[in-house]
Amino acid sequence: MIYFDSDYMAGAHPEVLQRLIDTNLEHTVGYGCDQYTEQAINHIREACDSPKAQVFFMVGGTQTNATIIDGILARHEGVLAPESAHINVHEAGAIEATGHKVLTLPQHEGKVWADEVEHYIEEFYRDETFLHMVAPGMLYISFPTEYGTVYTLSELEALSQVCHDAQIPLYIDGARLGYGLAAKEGNVTLKDIARLADVFYIGGTKMGTLMGEAVVVTNPALLKNMTPLMKQHGALLAKGRLLGVQFATLFSNDLYLNIGRYAVELAITLKNEFFARGYDIVVDSPTNQQFFRLPNDLIDQLKQHASFELWGPPGKTHSIVRFVTSWSTTYNDINRLIELI
Amino acid sequence: MIYFDSDYMAGAHPEVLQRLIDTNLEHTVGYGCDQYTEQAINHIREACDSPKAQVFFMVGGTQTNATIIDGILARHEGVLAPESAHINVHEAGAIEATGHKVLTLPQHEGKVWADEVEHYIEEFYRDETFLHMVAPGMLYISFPTEYGTVYTLSELEALSQVCHDAQIPLYIDGARLGYGLAAKEGNVTLKDIARLADVFYIGGTKMGTLMGEAVVVTNPALLKNMTPLMKQHGALLAKGRLLGVQFATLFSNDLYLNIGRYAVELAITLKNEFFARGYDIVVDSPTNQQFFRLPNDLIDQLKQHASFELWGPPGKTHSIVRFVTSWSTTYNDINRLIELI
Amino acid sequence: MIYFDSDYMAGAHPEVLQRLIDTNLEHTVGYGCDQYTEQAINHIREACDSPKAQVFFMVGGTQTNATIIDGILARHEGVLAPESAHINVHEAGAIEATGHKVLTLPQHEGKVWADEVEHYIEEFYRDETFLHMVAPGMLYISFPTEYGTVYTLSELEALSQVCHDAQIPLYIDGARLGYGLAAKEGNVTLKDIARLADVFYIGGTKMGTLMGEAVVVTNPALLKNMTPLMKQHGALLAKGRLLGVQFATLFSNDLYLNIGRYAVELAITLKNEFFARGYDIVVDSPTNQQFFRLPNDLIDQLKQHASFELWGPPGKTHSIVRFVTSWSTTYNDINRLIELI
Amino acid sequence: MIYFDSDYMAGAHPEVLQRLIDTNLEHTVGYGCDQYTEQAINHIREACDSPKAQVFFMVGGTQTNATIIDGILARHEGVLAPESAHINVHEAGAIEATGHKVLTLPQHEGKVWADEVEHYIEEFYRDETFLHMVAPGMLYISFPTEYGTVYTLSELEALSQVCHDAQIPLYIDGARLGYGLAAKEGNVTLKDIARLADVFYIGGTKMGTLMGEAVVVTNPALLKNMTPLMKQHGALLAKGRLLGVQFATLFSNDLYLNIGRYAVELAITLKNEFFARGYDIVVDSPTNQQFFRLPNDLIDQLKQHASFELWGPPGKTHSIVRFVTSWSTTYNDINRLIELI
Repeated sequence: MIYFDSDYMAGAHPEVLQRLIDTNLEHTVGYGCDQYTEQAINHIREACDSPKAQVFFMVGGTQTNATIIDGILARHEGVLAPESAHINVHEAGAIEATGHKVLTLPQHEGKVWADEVEHYIEEFYRDETFLHMVAPGMLYISFPTEYGTVYTLSELEALSQVCHDAQIPLYIDGARLGYGLAAKEGNVTLKDIARLADVFYIGGTKMGTLMGEAVVVTNPALLKNMTPLMKQHGALLAKGRLLGVQFATLFSNDLYLNIGRYAVELAITLKNEFFARGYDIVVDSPTNQQFFRLPNDLIDQLKQHASFELWGPPGKTHSIVRFVTSWSTTYNDINRLIELI
Repeated sequence: MIYFDSDYMAGAHPEVLQRLIDTNLEHTVGYGCDQYTEQAINHIREACDSPKAQVFFMVGGTQTNATIIDGILARHEGVLAPESAHINVHEAGAIEATGHKVLTLPQHEGKVWADEVEHYIEEFYRDETFLHMVAPGMLYISFPTEYGTVYTLSELEALSQVCHDAQIPLYIDGARLGYGLAAKEGNVTLKDIARLADVFYIGGTKMGTLMGEAVVVTNPALLKNMTPLMKQHGALLAKGRLLGVQFATLFSNDLYLNIGRYAVELAITLKNEFFARGYDIVVDSPTNQQFFRLPNDLIDQLKQHASFELWGPPGKTHSIVRFVTSWSTTYNDINRLIELI
Repeated sequence: MIYFDSDYMAGAHPEVLQRLIDTNLEHTVGYGCDQYTEQAINHIREACDSPKAQVFFMVGGTQTNATIIDGILARHEGVLAPESAHINVHEAGAIEATGHKVLTLPQHEGKVWADEVEHYIEEFYRDETFLHMVAPGMLYISFPTEYGTVYTLSELEALSQVCHDAQIPLYIDGARLGYGLAAKEGNVTLKDIARLADVFYIGGTKMGTLMGEAVVVTNPALLKNMTPLMKQHGALLAKGRLLGVQFATLFSNDLYLNIGRYAVELAITLKNEFFARGYDIVVDSPTNQQFFRLPNDLIDQLKQHASFELWGPPGKTHSIVRFVTSWSTTYNDINRLIELI
Repeated sequence: MIYFDSDYMAGAHPEVLQRLIDTNLEHTVGYGCDQYTEQAINHIREACDSPKAQVFFMVGGTQTNATIIDGILARHEGVLAPESAHINVHEAGAIEATGHKVLTLPQHEGKVWADEVEHYIEEFYRDETFLHMVAPGMLYISFPTEYGTVYTLSELEALSQVCHDAQIPLYIDGARLGYGLAAKEGNVTLKDIARLADVFYIGGTKMGTLMGEAVVVTNPALLKNMTPLMKQHGALLAKGRLLGVQFATLFSNDLYLNIGRYAVELAITLKNEFFARGYDIVVDSPTNQQFFRLPNDLIDQLKQHASFELWGPPGKTHSIVRFVTSWSTTYNDINRLIELI
């Protein structure tokens, strides 16, 4: 069986695992006050060209989103997000559980448009009834989006400008950030992300760690009491150094970017091969998630040898499927899948 | 100046006020354990033909909605509601502040359709990702709706059936319930409401009391610890008898229904007069809220003598306005407005 | 029967009720944007000698406490309060329901001591584990306390200083503020309260209104978005002018202070008469609540003619009882009670 | 340097790590639906003699406590716990952040007494004011306690009986469960824990895993929607199989119990050696945490070679210190420390 269900199906990238093995019996203090965490912070600051950024490590994406958003918003504020946002659909109400509404914007292949954000905010403050409504207190986007698409640099700059003008922070969910940065048609770098977002996170779980997400806060006034906030959210790992060790490894020798490039290259090969055989591409994704519209009998046939997900409800004759690559996908996996179609 | 902004612009209906005056110096125990509250409960049970219903009194609509919804839902559940629902738009995130998501359904002049509710629930449980999503735990509708429209009896029966089949309670926000029951084309009685909803509230604030909403729980298993729940929500009035006195009066001699009929008659007169003069009716409302599309210069002219609200953003040549009647509107007010158009 | 159970057993003070009657049929805009609310705000600012204070009106004490405390605290902070505080014991967890811990201090007849507050804060920050603990973010006290006692001016000044030094706001719950200001041995004025607290509320429910509490925010940076916050907490009354009318009356012609003085005078008379007859005074309260330790057979006998509460569990031979006076207590009530003992 | 600060200073027990290495490149489905998680569940059910127990895996203790407690309590309920409870002191208000009060009981070397729990509940329901208070909805204890002490079997049985009689569930926080089960004077087995608690968790983080806690729910009606609840709390690990692999290893060949016995043997050796040298033992702990009262100059001297924590504020001449052993402590570490004293 070959696996394309998701990018969190295997353990850790071998280099990351090796560092965990090498340091396993060392004793360090807990909760991220160790030297490995410090090392990881320094590597990330350098990679982001943000020497003063605050960096924090949490275990998973949902807890990271909930902690950050809850930490930023005032009680009467909500978070703007595309209707398709992970926080709006697939986090079991974790944001609402902290007391805040997700205010939805139209999504365009997973992206929001700066002018629509601007329009929302303008309309919101148009008349006095806004005092009875949930105020937009920040903007959440993901890079890449749920559909594997990426914002262009000018789209990101426009969003950043709109947020800045409205005095609301821009938060970028980078669960798959490295796959987005590797998009060939893309022109956004990690430094751009750090420059344009007030806070973002660099996903590890889907990019080579056992678990872990690195939050980078570039706006120093934004999140002032992260340790108790993380503790309160159950997001402060006792053996914090495990996250430090893993991210220090990911951010040595460009491993993070290399993992991204590798998986995206495999994904684009897949896309081209499907396309060459006349299958519909549902979203033209430049990253590690590819969406195809396939005949149901081909799907059934593929399912005997490959594991992957239907995307949305099955259709009568054709259905949409998603194939996801990662650092753990091999050229061999890709070749076998191509042979099957 | 004549007033059509809303139905909460004056104090209490004179009969209600008189009872408050008559009982003002009496001493009673607090928190709704007095004889007036008991009297009001009995009158309401009788009017609802629900001798075993639980009846509770709170002060305002938002606190009532938040308390009821928070009391019913499990932590992982949200409340289904039309996109236009008051809880979704105009309660400053009070529902989310209790930790629950408002799950929105398409609205059709403020109403939801039973088949769309059914479809939502079916789709929700279609595949296993629902375990990562907010489960629909109850349905919220209002009667009449934000647009003044009312459900027909068969529409309500269909919604009640869908909820029953899905084992989720149906909650009806009756902030303006009496105006809805008075709709001439309508065929829904208070007893129908009590039979079809698991819980609903009878609005007092907009129907003749100084303040106060009466919650009726007909499903006995639904809300078991209302007193501490109301206290926790800041919704337990110390001088609870004030609500008892007012609702006991409203539910004596059909005052509640009479107020509804009176205000709706005035509103329909208005509608007919605007219609007769060729003005567009935006929603064909059978209740005390009427929505017209008027030329901007007429609006400016009316504003000199009458107070009323724009509905939505102003247009270039025409805008939508709302006129609301209540027990405190007089025939004279209506005649003066008609003379102005 | 004569009533000494509490100070919220009757309706409104006759002058307050009369103003409600006089204004009942007027139409005003809602939510506290009317001229009566403005009038009340101005009267209160003047009485507090705080021309720039923000003033807001809510319906009841629990909702006021929850809204204020939730609005002030950061997510990782809790509220310091005496163990006997109303918010700690008798508000059904309303503060915790907003996500915040009540951090308890020892109470001394309902009061906290400045040096104990100071010590708590010093100890809290002593070692780094504080990052895993709930930070003290504000101090809550009540004036008078749950036991009817009042802080002296120098006690209040010391508390204010400790809070100022620790950069946490001081919040005073004044549910019975007027009875506290009337304490004969007391030397604290409303202006002192306004000068020393960052925020406090002037209770109306127990001091002559049907319902309502007036929040005074003297620290301008403290609470910036009160309207949506109150709305979210279900604490924004639709017919806000009802609170405006009532407080405008209370703060005309010294009615508020006079109510306080009147009820306290009756209470002190009671205390003296019990004392003269050899009964134990449990707490030497200078305000409208009096606590006596009485023989159980006297209690049984009194209960036939007077209504009052046991304070704590009944004892074998003696029990503690509470007698409360208010504007609605008459000299006649007092005389009849004295005759009975 | 030798380390006695805590039991989460090293990585994973070598056998646990080896299984992670062996399975690292395998692809499995996420979120705990894999075969390793199933294996771990089966092993734990067997070890607990509870074939029908539900077993769930989360990442850390605070998130486990918050998820379980939030999932069990009704909105108006709080959790009873000893004043020294981890949830009351060192979880940054995580329980309150879910909306629930921690109701504190006196602690006796970290333990609560059954008769005091019973008394609390009886007193609570004594008069009607309980409707304005937070109802005790469950009991939280830890085994072993914060002070390393353990309940005897009869103490646990009494607590279980009191909870059963009051119809509130008993929850046992087992962050260090294996060290408690290994107490030589103790007579409590894992099967007893499973029989007497309604829900408990078996700590992994401090007992040999990189991270992870296994929740065992023996009362089937208690927690019905754990997957969305865990997701909402940010406690559902994407690569759930990592927890499955680790716990399957811990619960093979008695590794879990052996780790407990090993570390406790080392700790008792330490205790005896300190005792033999005349140093005060502050709490007579039979588990892996030992508390001594040492002269400050000895502490300073030890600190040059050993890492450990002060317990509470430093004293003038003597202070209290804690030494903690774990699977990663060696005989050599113990011998070196003994040589130093």
